[in-house]
Amino acid sequence: MGERVAILGPGLLGGSLAMALVAQQRDVVVWGRRQQPLDHLKSVCHGVTVESDLDHAVADASLVVLATPIGVMPGLLRSIRQSASSGKLITDVGSVKAPIVAQAETILEGSSHLFVGSHPMAGSEASGIEAATAGLFDGARCLVTPHERSPADAVEEIAAFWKSVAMRVHQLSAEEHDRIVAHISHLPHALASLLVTTAIGDHPEWAAFCGGGLQDTTRVASGEPHMWTEIFLENRKAVLESLNAAESELRRLASIIESEEIEALNRFLLEAKELRDSHIVPQIQP
Amino acid sequence: MGERVAILGPGLLGGSLAMALVAQQRDVVVWGRRQQPLDHLKSVCHGVTVESDLDHAVADASLVVLATPIGVMPGLLRSIRQSASSGKLITDVGSVKAPIVAQAETILEGSSHLFVGSHPMAGSEASGIEAATAGLFDGARCLVTPHERSPADAVEEIAAFWKSVAMRVHQLSAEEHDRIVAHISHLPHALASLLVTTAIGDHPEWAAFCGGGLQDTTRVASGEPHMWTEIFLENRKAVLESLNAAESELRRLASIIESEEIEALNRFLLEAKELRDSHIVPQIQP
Repeated sequence: MGERVAILGPGLLGGSLAMALVAQQRDVVVWGRRQQPLDHLKSVCHGVTVESDLDHAVADASLVVLATPIGVMPGLLRSIRQSASSGKLITDVGSVKAPIVAQAETILEGSSHLFVGSHPMAGSEASGIEAATAGLFDGARCLVTPHERSPADAVEEIAAFWKSVAMRVHQLSAEEHDRIVAHISHLPHALASLLVTTAIGDHPEWAAFCGGGLQDTTRVASGEPHMWTEIFLENRKAVLESLNAAESELRRLASIIESEEIEALNRFLLEAKELRDSHIVPQIQP
Repeated sequence: MGERVAILGPGLLGGSLAMALVAQQRDVVVWGRRQQPLDHLKSVCHGVTVESDLDHAVADASLVVLATPIGVMPGLLRSIRQSASSGKLITDVGSVKAPIVAQAETILEGSSHLFVGSHPMAGSEASGIEAATAGLFDGARCLVTPHERSPADAVEEIAAFWKSVAMRVHQLSAEEHDRIVAHISHLPHALASLLVTTAIGDHPEWAAFCGGGLQDTTRVASGEPHMWTEIFLENRKAVLESLNAAESELRRLASIIESEEIEALNRFLLEAKELRDSHIVPQIQP
């Protein structure tokens, strides 16, 4: 773990990862297209190397972490394949896994590079290098998604990497990952967004009367729209499946209320309360 | 404001109200059917009078606050009408206003008692006297819902009462109140509950991978099911209207995702983000 790590993309995740690694005296180079985030990172993270030339950034690294928007990743993988002479172990931080795992497979086929997908589940509705913090990953989950042809030692190295920044690592297939996050992360975002527009879209002044409930329920809707547009479209199939399931539950609830079924309504709410109280417990969050 | 206040119902709101008033050396009697909450209140709020006989509790009070579940309120109003010799000014803390305002009108017609509905928008997913705190109302909103026949001085007295516990008071009609809270409070609760069952109902183990997003988005679903059953049924018409509007937004979002309309999806999410960031600002909450 003493070798150089190249982080491509100085955003919230890439910047925070650089800070966490540099705090452990690791050799870290961060590549970015624009100079401003690199300058910002340099000013808050002494000891990091920044680089705007992709080939230079990757050349001496053994591990490469793609920390850009998902749509940018295939181009980066192609550049690495073309320019890097030594074989790299490559991972990413994308919120959707099946598409990037499949693309990496195609792009890197026959090369000496290896890709093992990761989804460090850290972050918040904040974005950008300004929100980066060395503790972002502490105690949070990281889902690592090898495919059946991933060499065990490469998977183990990626898992150890995330554990080194205090993440709790789990392995599962990219497809299972995408289905899970559609339900526990993308669906909450979709419902939070449509709740905002439904609740106050026609009457923004009503928000003056809202309490902590609407505020918490919609918090994630303040997330970066471009990033979430990309996530919803990359994970389209699983997101639609979860939205359709939510619509069924909405119709079931509306029907119970319409027909004034007291017992059924109480059961609906009690089941949700018990599920939440037993399972959705506070996570260790920065 | 130096006269006795009778609070009927020693729950979260009634108990907190008693604590806030007693802290100001006000003369407060709290009535409850069961002894345990009264004993608890007495132990944490020295100076409060507790009473399990309704007629005694109300006899010497000038102001009566109904702080029970909504369904219990009509019975309490009938008791007051039957037993109280002097005219009382009566208000409540119910989350739905049109039904109780209409019932109070009928029950108290021709008596010397006056009812002006209130909805102090304080509280949380916690409930019961154990969660009560003197600061619960500090800075929170209180919606007062007079009808056209409410005497102005009675309305003014109720408004002044809530202001005396540091609430920010607004007046509007009971019907407008119910439509607003359906959208900004009852709909968030409904969506939070159905989100829990949709996200992890079939796979509670998936919750292990959830972050702060699902946790915050579903927080209110931990609320007391009986109370929310009552609220949804009392405010049935407005709640169904808001649920139907949410379903339309859900379908609109799903259709945009299905047809991969990048620009429309980005606009949808951006509109929600901008609405939230501009209007759903942190409230002063205990």
